[in-house]
Amino acid sequence: MSDTFGQRLSAALSRHGALCVGIDPHAALLSAWGLDATAEGAREFGLRTVEAAQGRVGVVKPQVAFYERYGSRGFAALEDVLAAARDAGLLVIADAKRGDIGTTMEGYAHAWLEPGSPLEADAVTLSPYMGADSLRDTLSLAVGHGKGAFVLTATSNPEARALQSAIVDDAQAVGDHEHVAARVAHDVNQANIGAPGALGPVGVVVGATVDRPAFGLGDVALAGMPILAPGFGAQGAAPADLRRLFGYVASAVVANESRSILAVGPDRLAARIDERAALYRESLHG
Amino acid sequence: MSDTFGQRLSAALSRHGALCVGIDPHAALLSAWGLDATAEGAREFGLRTVEAAQGRVGVVKPQVAFYERYGSRGFAALEDVLAAARDAGLLVIADAKRGDIGTTMEGYAHAWLEPGSPLEADAVTLSPYMGADSLRDTLSLAVGHGKGAFVLTATSNPEARALQSAIVDDAQAVGDHEHVAARVAHDVNQANIGAPGALGPVGVVVGATVDRPAFGLGDVALAGMPILAPGFGAQGAAPADLRRLFGYVASAVVANESRSILAVGPDRLAARIDERAALYRESLHG
Repeated sequence: MSDTFGQRLSAALSRHGALCVGIDPHAALLSAWGLDATAEGAREFGLRTVEAAQGRVGVVKPQVAFYERYGSRGFAALEDVLAAARDAGLLVIADAKRGDIGTTMEGYAHAWLEPGSPLEADAVTLSPYMGADSLRDTLSLAVGHGKGAFVLTATSNPEARALQSAIVDDAQAVGDHEHVAARVAHDVNQANIGAPGALGPVGVVVGATVDRPAFGLGDVALAGMPILAPGFGAQGAAPADLRRLFGYVASAVVANESRSILAVGPDRLAARIDERAALYRESLHG
Repeated sequence: MSDTFGQRLSAALSRHGALCVGIDPHAALLSAWGLDATAEGAREFGLRTVEAAQGRVGVVKPQVAFYERYGSRGFAALEDVLAAARDAGLLVIADAKRGDIGTTMEGYAHAWLEPGSPLEADAVTLSPYMGADSLRDTLSLAVGHGKGAFVLTATSNPEARALQSAIVDDAQAVGDHEHVAARVAHDVNQANIGAPGALGPVGVVVGATVDRPAFGLGDVALAGMPILAPGFGAQGAAPADLRRLFGYVASAVVANESRSILAVGPDRLAARIDERAALYRESLHG
């Protein structure tokens, strides 16, 4: 039996540390790199980032929106970037934030997680507005294919707080104050039951600077799940904060940086990745 | 000044009635139509549905997931379907359920709502897990381009209820029991302020069979917004229920049917659309 996504991710984080390099070819960065704001520019941007990331980090996260904006040609570019990253031995999280129900959700699951699909990634990000439980079949499909998923849970943008900290009021509620984010984390973790290893294949997206207690997301609520954490680098948190911010679950964190790395431009990219990756390794093991 | 999406939608609903034809080429339907489960099959399925819908309804809703599953070739097929539908004078709602923040969300907004984009539609569906307020710039961009958007608010799948009916607990909360769905509807409607006509350009997705009071979605909460309502046809609600289910806001409803229409196959499709469309017209005006 081949390794689960959780096992492969654990190995990658142990070897390279927490840093995940975001691949975000938005127009301003394309221009700074001397590339056109076209599908071709976004392809080139992605391929160069993959080349610089290879051997330096374990995980990359292409941001689908920046390819989708160019339509089918953008997706053709993304397919090349995904394939190059997987060929380079990187774990690839497609940041797509998809979410739907039934056969529709199955369409998305097949697109991103089915072996042999043109958009095949190692994991995909999902959005649970229709209920995290509505993603159950997708999470099972991920696990069955040795893939992973990260479900949006608590994000650091201020507009998110009202919804994600709202109080669930149903017969399954835990105590008087179960927050939406805590319910999502709980429902997602069900798909990890029975998975081998310390880290399950499916996890959550929790912003680095989120006030976790306000969302009911103490260490226990997140135990055993991989945690994709945007909010490092340009968005505010420092590598040295990793242990303080995530406590006992810090070793499960995939710390994404995009702008803080990409903004140095293609020539200094590899050196910058080395430098940032080392900071994360020191923060947990130093 | 050209018409807003709300004005164009109003005109389409007055002329053709509430029926919106879903374009859902999932594998089972492709097979029933004698088409391959490929991008080419999904293109053919979409183009034939557009041909049958032309002049019979005002609105069609392609389901993006069923194209996305074929990767860039699927998106190329979807581009052809979107263009054919718009050329046929149909209003096109791309059912993509996208949701993100900042420049990433801008990428999605440009993909679906920017005039001249290969995936240009008349409106797109959005998912508000990161806070409906985080979609504000996208809704403004939609309005600025004469486009529309429908934000997921209360969906009829049972797994959605815990999250969508959760109680918001912040300084802006209206009364003691503001539900997440009601907050979403309120935030979305802000983008309609100042829009001409009885129907704003941006609205909500509310399932036809949703118990609206349980989500704080009385008629007043939905006033002035277009309402995309899945859940008619195969999913349970009948055209004759439209007035009973949506009360004073029934005339703003876009009633989507997919399987109940598509399952008859390509040869009987036009007749089936005529038959279902007439039932919706009778239900409001008969």
